[in-house]
This record gives sequence, structure tokens and C-alpha cells, in this order.
Amino acid sequence: MEKIKPHTLSGFMELLPAPQQQMERMMQILRQTYSLYGFTALDTPQIEAADVLLAKGGGETEKQIYRFQKGDSDLALRFDLTVPLAKYVALHYSELTFPFRRYQIGKVYRGERAQRGRFREFYQADIDVIGDGQLSIVNEAEIPSIIYRTFTELGLKRFQIRVNNRKILNGFYEMQGLSSVSGDVMRTVDKLDKIGAAKVRACLVDDFSVSEAAADAVLNFISIQGTSAEMLAALEGYRGKNELFDTGLDELKTVVDCVRAFGVPEENFAVDLTIARGLDYYTGTVYETTMLDHPEIGSICSGGRYDNLAEYYTDKQLPGVGISIGLTRLFYVLQEQKMLNDAMNTSPADVIILPMSDDLAPAISLATALRAEGVRTQLYAEQKKFKARISYANKLHIPFAVFLGEDEINAGSATVKDLYLADDLSDAEKAEQEAKGIFKQITLPVSDAVAYVKKRLAENAQQPPILDRGHITEKYNLQQP
Amino acid sequence: MEKIKPHTLSGFMELLPAPQQQMERMMQILRQTYSLYGFTALDTPQIEAADVLLAKGGGETEKQIYRFQKGDSDLALRFDLTVPLAKYVALHYSELTFPFRRYQIGKVYRGERAQRGRFREFYQADIDVIGDGQLSIVNEAEIPSIIYRTFTELGLKRFQIRVNNRKILNGFYEMQGLSSVSGDVMRTVDKLDKIGAAKVRACLVDDFSVSEAAADAVLNFISIQGTSAEMLAALEGYRGKNELFDTGLDELKTVVDCVRAFGVPEENFAVDLTIARGLDYYTGTVYETTMLDHPEIGSICSGGRYDNLAEYYTDKQLPGVGISIGLTRLFYVLQEQKMLNDAMNTSPADVIILPMSDDLAPAISLATALRAEGVRTQLYAEQKKFKARISYANKLHIPFAVFLGEDEINAGSATVKDLYLADDLSDAEKAEQEAKGIFKQITLPVSDAVAYVKKRLAENAQQPPILDRGHITEKYNLQQP
Repeated sequence: MEKIKPHTLSGFMELLPAPQQQMERMMQILRQTYSLYGFTALDTPQIEAADVLLAKGGGETEKQIYRFQKGDSDLALRFDLTVPLAKYVALHYSELTFPFRRYQIGKVYRGERAQRGRFREFYQADIDVIGDGQLSIVNEAEIPSIIYRTFTELGLKRFQIRVNNRKILNGFYEMQGLSSVSGDVMRTVDKLDKIGAAKVRACLVDDFSVSEAAADAVLNFISIQGTSAEMLAALEGYRGKNELFDTGLDELKTVVDCVRAFGVPEENFAVDLTIARGLDYYTGTVYETTMLDHPEIGSICSGGRYDNLAEYYTDKQLPGVGISIGLTRLFYVLQEQKMLNDAMNTSPADVIILPMSDDLAPAISLATALRAEGVRTQLYAEQKKFKARISYANKLHIPFAVFLGEDEINAGSATVKDLYLADDLSDAEKAEQEAKGIFKQITLPVSDAVAYVKKRLAENAQQPPILDRGHITEKYNLQQP
Repeated sequence: MEKIKPHTLSGFMELLPAPQQQMERMMQILRQTYSLYGFTALDTPQIEAADVLLAKGGGETEKQIYRFQKGDSDLALRFDLTVPLAKYVALHYSELTFPFRRYQIGKVYRGERAQRGRFREFYQADIDVIGDGQLSIVNEAEIPSIIYRTFTELGLKRFQIRVNNRKILNGFYEMQGLSSVSGDVMRTVDKLDKIGAAKVRACLVDDFSVSEAAADAVLNFISIQGTSAEMLAALEGYRGKNELFDTGLDELKTVVDCVRAFGVPEENFAVDLTIARGLDYYTGTVYETTMLDHPEIGSICSGGRYDNLAEYYTDKQLPGVGISIGLTRLFYVLQEQKMLNDAMNTSPADVIILPMSDDLAPAISLATALRAEGVRTQLYAEQKKFKARISYANKLHIPFAVFLGEDEINAGSATVKDLYLADDLSDAEKAEQEAKGIFKQITLPVSDAVAYVKKRLAENAQQPPILDRGHITEKYNLQQP
């Protein structure tokens, strides 16, 4: 038969089993963490009517979208999870209870130019809180603690959550008479890290006709740095000149207070006046999260407060706050940076049972007993030599093999072999391990063997999917890594 | 602003939050159960190159497929999880270890005519074991126990796993000299339930030129019924006439023996000689699973043994065995039949904290303590009247509210209110509940309040997503419901 060459499309991530297990563990941690904060899971179609998806229209989005006809229908694949959420909330408005807290982890599609580290199909992991007409600032204030817990549970240590408040920025620009060019100013300021203060100043004055005085004021303003407390104190100096600014400052103060009350360490959090995010969308607190040792990657978790989620579908005023993790890209970066934790158990099973007799009943009983205790068990019954069986288990990194030979079956026992522990331990090392209850090989009554395996696995179950070798030190410049 | 009418495409399931929680729970149970049997998670792209996806070509599939151009690429959405698995195994052959056991739960797409209960986007939940060149019959024999455990964990009781073996069928037809028309015969026999034995016989003789004697032999054969043991005994009567048949019978015997050893109750299992499944694909054991009270739904979990997974992509001989659950359709049916378990906690949170003072720090501490214990907690800080707050919690079916007023804060305590327990218990009923440690409302030191809530939640955590009110009775005709 003529063969078709099997291939996977460029820009589409397809993982081998071991890294897939790490990805699955990451998604499981996200689901668990989001649930702990009272977010409910949502699942919307990957395909929507093109007119619904493109209600906002225009821009890069429309060029990148996967759009096609099926019968008479003009269809498109979703390019984010926010537009489907807006549709969902507008459509099911009367059946939902507000504030509506939902998380969604799902694939989205953008037909970008193929490029290393760029994906056309990728997971986003979003949370949003949607209010009906109004929404307390406390929702904005809780977000950094959710980001902190999420990344900590994943195993990341050296990251920083940066927040700003758009009301502070917009209020400040109003003070300086720069409201009409605030978008240009923010885009220019955003280049500070790349082009430096002098060029930013020149650009403001030359390209956008900002007065010299106002340009200095802008540069002074965005150079405010320090701990959250220091920054709040510095911002107090601007109070009383603009109502919007004052509201933003009050909000930022609430956010900083809550972050502290939630126990987010000072090292993992900063106020950063240079952050603006989506210019015509966010209206309050905005968030970015950076890996301190990899600033080149940009933000790995971003979002903010918006006033009008579903304005293209409904007259209802639906303010909200949300964040999004680009999971596929994050996973790719972690893989590139060798930050995935090899010590995490990525095997398909915890135990492989190797029956050594023709009668499978004892092996089946043992498998059933192990599974009843939650131990992932593979019953290996292929007709292979002993060495090939062990080699199979080793290739899959299965931690324990259990042998059931005639002797074991007659005695009602099982032999458990630890496939991770080195074969060539000295007698002293062996004794040391055995004092800790760790045996290279041990024969036990069946029920004790099950308990032994369960206990040993529990000791090693807490490995996070990410291994961050960095440690936060006080010496590290946390404000500007 | 002009509005776009928000809508979801017909044939695409989009659930409200409460049923979505039930769906999520079902998927979680599937992931857990499949993992317990040593299957590893896989995730392949939803989009593949059209030539790869349609390698087999032809038939209904090609008409139903979502196929479109993007740039120069001819793309298509996957219509099942088997073709992507075949591609994956052929593509990554040298990096995989065989037997390769994988599960995948993912959405697939078929542009069927829109129809009640038919979906164009739906989840399949598949497991497969793929061998390299060979694969032990024990893999086939283990499948019914996986099906049994999966549905039992989901909460289903009245279901029956039916197995047959294609070698038995093909061997039998060889014996009767019917090999050349075996496909037609099997398709006709498949209509037995609908048209009855007389019409099946007439159809065999008139339409397919089967001799009267052979037609009688066929009808005799498929009328073999009884317990697994009785059926094996009856089939022994045909032994020695055809090698293929004898192999199939040996295999079936192994399957039946294993099913018993795995502890699958006799009521949930049957040998059924009328099952054939995909005629040109399966070559050994085949499976169907039916809901005994809803035979009209057809099989909810099907599959079988095949010899050549990836023949369109590779010369490697890759035999396997797999089953698939059509999850979206199953969920739809369960919803229609009112078999989703209302007693399952579908709330987005287990506890809602209602702070009654301006200082949020105590509420934040309490939320952190509850979350540290794995209790899903929402901090509710909207400026609403007390009644509106409780109404919010009730609408979401949140089981517990915790109040933190000035008194509680000063005393380091918290007041826990049980929102499920009736308000109007008599004194006697109240005393009875309290003797069991259940209080409508109780004020406790904060750490005790956390422990109390955790304990109460644990008591109610075991509700499965499906509530099967039926009970298997001996009186019920299990063979022909």
C-alpha cells in the first residue's frame, strides 16, 4: 500500500508522553488553584460564527484568524478565550449569578507566521470575575495572590508580579494636559527598557509635541521606584490634583494592602508605573508577571480590570477583571530553559506487575488491590524475556516492578523491586537506605507489599512540574532585573 | 453601538456552570481511572493536514469533515482520535516504548446534519494499547474491567459490557462456506433485534444466496445465549472444525477468565455473538456497552482489537486494542434522562466568606487558611445588603457561609452557617442533627471553624456525577433487555 508521510503541522505543539505528563500536571495544578479561589470551570466551543467572533473587528486579529465556510455557515476558530466569554455572558446573562467567576483552559488559534517558539494552536488558561453593573476593587486586589499561588504551586520561585493602575496613568496624563496623546505617550514609555530615557524624552517632544516640561514630568513620574510602600508614598505627592488619579491611588493602596494580607512575599510583587497593557480595554489595575532570570520572555501572566466585557453583544454594563497565562508558550520556554523538573514522576504507571507464571489470577488480584489504593498499575503480560521486561519498565521510568513467581504465589507474597535505586550500593549505603525503610528488593506478604509501595510513592509525590534552581536573594535587583 | 446577536452554533454543546461542573467531574474520573490502568495522557492537535487525516479516504467521513485552506495549506479538523493516534505512533515510532498505552480525551468534529442529540463538536474519551508487531491477548482481556470500573466510578449501575470475538465469527462463517458474504451476513444479523429471526433468515436466503441449511446454522449460532460459562460450553461444540474459530474461542475464554478474576460482576458482563463492529477493521475481541434501561441509545462505549493501526503511514505492523466513549452524547443522554446527580456539589466554591467589617485582613487570613486546607473559598466583598449576599450564595448552591463581624474578629472566631440545612427544624430535629455534629449555625475559634467546614465537606464529597436509580435484579433479563 502506498504510504502517506505522517507529519504534524508546523506551529502545533505535539508532546512525547513524558513531557505531556508534565504539561498535564501543570494543567491539573491550574484547575485546582483556580478552583480554590471559587472559579468555576467553563468550556465553550472552539468554533464560533465568524460574525460573533469578529464583532469587535479589524486589526491583526482578523488577518490571523482561521476562518472557513461549512455549508452556508461562515465559521471561525476562537483566537482567545475572552471573546467567547463575552458571548457566553451576554447569551446566558439571565441564567448566571454575578459576580460570575469562571476559569477556562482551552486551545485557541492564530495563523501567525511560523517561527520558533510561536504557536498557531496554543492553550490559554484564563480566569475572570464579571460583575453586573459594578464590581468591588477587592476582586482586583485578590488577583496577585492567585498569580502568586499558581506559579508557586507549579514550582516557580524567581518571578515577579507587577501591577499598575490605569486610573493613575490616565489621571496623571490629564494633570499634564496630555490626555489627547496619552496612547502615544504610553507606547513610547513602554520602550524605556529598550531605548533609554533620553530617547524616550526626545521622542515625546519631537514626535508627539509634548512640551519639554511635560516630558520631564513624565520621565520623573515613571522613574518612581522602590518598595510598594515607598511608591505609594511617592504617589501621594501627586494627590489632590486630579480626581481620577486619586481614585486610582486609593485602588492601588487597596491592592497593595491585600497583597500583603494574602501573604505574597515582597520579593514577588512590585508596583511598576511603566505597565499599561491593552490601551483601549483596561481601565483599572493591570498585571504583568515576569520571570526574573528571563526578562526576554516578557510577561507570562497578564491582564487587568476592564469596564465593559460584552459591549458588542449587549447594553448591559459588565465590568470585570481577568488574567491569562499563555500555557503552551510558557511550557515551550520552560523546556528550552531546562526548567521542567526531571524528578517529577512522568511514567505512565507507578508499578509494573511482571507475572512469572501462567496463571494470571494472582497478578490480577494484586493489580486490583494496588489500583484500589490509587496506585497506577500496569499488568505486563507480553511474552518477553525477563531482561526485556525490565528494560521496558526502565525505558518508561516506572519506579517499581513487582514479581509474582511460583514461590511468591504459594507463599501469598510479592517481590517489590525499586527500579530507581542504584544497583551497586555498598553494604553501608544499603544499610543506611534500609534503616529508612528503602529496599532495592524486598519480598512481603501481598497486603504489606501494597502498603509498602503506596508509602514509598507518597514520599515522592510532591515534586512540582517546574524546577526553579534560582533563589530569590536580597542582592538581586528586583525592580529592574 | 450596534450589537451583534450573541449565539452559539447549532450542534455545539455549551453548558451552564452547574452541569459543566458535572461534566468536569466526569472527565476527572475518566482521567483518574485510565491512569490507574497505566495509560498515559496524550494531546494531539485539533487541526491536521488534510492528506494525513484523510489517508484512508472515502466514505461518510470525507463528507462530514471540516476542511479548509489557510494560506497554501489544506487543513482539516480531526473527526476522531484514532487517526491522529495512528499518525502519532507512526511519526514518533522510534521515541515510543511498546506496548504503548495512551488515553486521550479531546474534542472531535463532524459536520453532521443538525439534529437533537447529535453534535458537530463532541468529546471522545479513548484508550488504546498499541503493540509493536505483537500484543498479548491479556490486553484485550483487561478492557472489560476498565470499562466496568470507569462507569462504576461515574455512578452508573445498570449497564452491561458485551463482548464477542471476530475470529469466532469469521471462523464460523468459514465453516459454513460463507466467507465471501460474511460482511452481508453480519450486517443482516445485526438487524435481528429490529426485524426478528424470520426476516433475517429470509434476507440471508433471498438477498445473499445463503443456502437454507447455512441460514439455519447462522440463526442457531447467534441464538446461543446464557451466562458466559454456558456460552463458552455451547461454543465448544463447534471446536475442531476451523483453526481461526478455535483461536477465537481460546481468546474469548481468556477474556472471560480475566473478567471474572478482575471481579466484574456477572450481571455487568455478557458474551454476545451478534456484535460485530467495524467490519474491515477489528480482528479479535470486540466490545459494546449498553445502558440496560436505555437500549435505544445504543452502545456508550465500544471498540475492539485491530491488527494494523497505522498502515496508511508505515510498514510497521502495529496491532492494538482500544475503546472509545462518546462523552458529549453520553452527557446529553444523562441530562435528558435526568440521571445527572443533583446531590453532587456543583457550586463554584465550598465556602463563601462574608466580611461584615471594613478591615478585610481577618477575612483574607481566613480565606487563606481555608484554601490551605483545600477548601474552595470565595471572598465576597461586593457592597450589598446581607440578604442579597445570602441570596447570591444560595443561587450558586454554596454549602457554607462564614461571617466575620466585629464580635467574631475581636474574639478570634468565625460564624459558620450551613446553607443546605433547612431553616425550620423542630427542636427535636435540631438536637438530632447537633448530636451528629451538624449545626445550622455555629460560632467557633477560627482554626476550629476551618476544621469543622473541612470535616463537613469531606462527609459529602463522595457523590458521583451520575445517579442511577435502577438496581440490577436477578429477575431482569440481562441478555436481552
